[in-house]
Amino acid sequence: MDERLPAPTLLLAVDAGGTSCRTAVVDRAGTCTGVAVAGSANPLSTPDADAAAAVVTSILAAVEQSGVAPCEAAMVLLAAAGGGHRPEFLELVSRSLSLRGVEASVRLEPDGLAAFCSGTHLMDGYVLVAGTGAVAQRVEGGRGARSVDGLGWLLGDVGSGFWVGQRVVRAVLADLDGTGQSTALTPALVAAMGLEDLLGIGDDLNGRPGLVHEIGLAAYADLPVRLARFAALAFATAGDPVADAILDEAADGLAVTLRTAMGQGRPGPVVVAGGLLAGPQGLRDRVSARLGAQLPPEGLLPVPDGLVGAAVLGLRQLGVRVDADVFSRLTRSVAAHRG
Amino acid sequence: MDERLPAPTLLLAVDAGGTSCRTAVVDRAGTCTGVAVAGSANPLSTPDADAAAAVVTSILAAVEQSGVAPCEAAMVLLAAAGGGHRPEFLELVSRSLSLRGVEASVRLEPDGLAAFCSGTHLMDGYVLVAGTGAVAQRVEGGRGARSVDGLGWLLGDVGSGFWVGQRVVRAVLADLDGTGQSTALTPALVAAMGLEDLLGIGDDLNGRPGLVHEIGLAAYADLPVRLARFAALAFATAGDPVADAILDEAADGLAVTLRTAMGQGRPGPVVVAGGLLAGPQGLRDRVSARLGAQLPPEGLLPVPDGLVGAAVLGLRQLGVRVDADVFSRLTRSVAAHRG
Repeated sequence: MDERLPAPTLLLAVDAGGTSCRTAVVDRAGTCTGVAVAGSANPLSTPDADAAAAVVTSILAAVEQSGVAPCEAAMVLLAAAGGGHRPEFLELVSRSLSLRGVEASVRLEPDGLAAFCSGTHLMDGYVLVAGTGAVAQRVEGGRGARSVDGLGWLLGDVGSGFWVGQRVVRAVLADLDGTGQSTALTPALVAAMGLEDLLGIGDDLNGRPGLVHEIGLAAYADLPVRLARFAALAFATAGDPVADAILDEAADGLAVTLRTAMGQGRPGPVVVAGGLLAGPQGLRDRVSARLGAQLPPEGLLPVPDGLVGAAVLGLRQLGVRVDADVFSRLTRSVAAHRG
Repeated sequence: MDERLPAPTLLLAVDAGGTSCRTAVVDRAGTCTGVAVAGSANPLSTPDADAAAAVVTSILAAVEQSGVAPCEAAMVLLAAAGGGHRPEFLELVSRSLSLRGVEASVRLEPDGLAAFCSGTHLMDGYVLVAGTGAVAQRVEGGRGARSVDGLGWLLGDVGSGFWVGQRVVRAVLADLDGTGQSTALTPALVAAMGLEDLLGIGDDLNGRPGLVHEIGLAAYADLPVRLARFAALAFATAGDPVADAILDEAADGLAVTLRTAMGQGRPGPVVVAGGLLAGPQGLRDRVSARLGAQLPPEGLLPVPDGLVGAAVLGLRQLGVRVDADVFSRLTRSVAAHRG
């Protein structure tokens, strides 16, 4: 923190994600007075200037909503994909805010830890995230102590959105190619890709069903990781044996990842986040069933994102002890301002 | 073929592969009088000018070795990855040859068909290729009638070099990360990557074994398909349960691919090519065992490449009937000139 600034009285907690970027304005008692959302601030898929602009936009909107004086000394706690934001990026955010009358120091925390702290005020426990990627973490004394998987789409991320989506497309191609079972995923994927008009086309030059060729072209035209968008089809066609097998295998993988992070460690809450675990549909029940008695009585605790956790981490940096009361006030007031 | 040229009397058969490019000079009786090898001519991984230069270099070297008059009217039969070479590329090869005194028309055939014709002079049968990728084809009346798999590293290529290599790296990372079994692949991969010095390093910032981090960095720094180079480690550590499971699953996949291409079709020879099926080590015995009585009595026929097949296809285009005698003469004379 820049020592020329007065001790911050205002916390601007930012959860900088790949789809969107959220800010909560929070006072030292844990009361949230404003929440705002802006575009993608993922450091891997968004250029620095655009990511910083999204962060600043969400901060200014949240400050305006909260009605606090923007000239108050503030601290920005930025939760982002582990290690992705370089010091230059934090400096860029700080300077952009200063130009707009907000003097703030900017600190970074890993998004996995923020997800954990969105679900509990306790200092020890576990978090399992399955969105586009998949990773588990053991948290000890309020810090990340051990990561498991999170190795990316090519080498790991077992049970992630990419992992499921890739298997969906592979299963459809195997169905059409004759090497795999017939599956309801096939018409679902054809519709999702907008290829219904091609359902009747003949074989291509290699004597292969023309639809196989077209699906392949469409998939290779995009980044590999974009296959994650087809994971939803596996949930939408649940009951289909091929789709169910993919989801069961994904849950097996996530259970192994979480169990490995838990190891022989002390007990603690298990927070889950990401579209495949925290959404209305998803793998939460399947993963719970596999962990059974290894889970604490409250089971898996889903959180929508890392926004509350970013605030928890920010409060701790400001010297505030986040107990059950503060955490409860924070959770309820953030939820109220999400509208 | 350009009608201004006299009817070709000389065949220049070229097998244009990704690792190297081979040419055989063949007369109408099927006698090979020269073979030469040059660099990569893969249309996907090599720029047109470089691929054409490799083709021309191998042709000129083979012509020189054979001692035939280069002014003779010639036909170039180029076997290359299906559909990859555009007409401009064939024109480029033709013009480069003309500048060097070789007047030739250039024709293209798919490399899979050339692999099949390297193993038999019969017009009907099957070919299974497993190199970096994996594909099976049914051949009817001397033409490719049905392709199965060959869908590339992201969507298919089950049992290919990429498929095995990716599983090798994933198994090692799972071993180090604690989510998978201990395996002899781990020290083998660490040595292959030259990371032995890092065997003792501690955890990284995410509380993950440092070696996991380093292997991930090395793998993501290269093209995904380059993981194929680690397939050899699975064969080198055969007997290790994890390596054996990968190889068994690869053989299962290749057997399904071949069986799908065979369908209820007429009987015929089954030719196999590519490093995973035609080399001294490999999956040939495993795949044979899975096909059993579905294979003809002679089993799987391995061929080193598509060079003989390119000559067979070229002779047929010149109106020569390639019978058992011509095929035998061709096979023996090409082998003699490979040295």
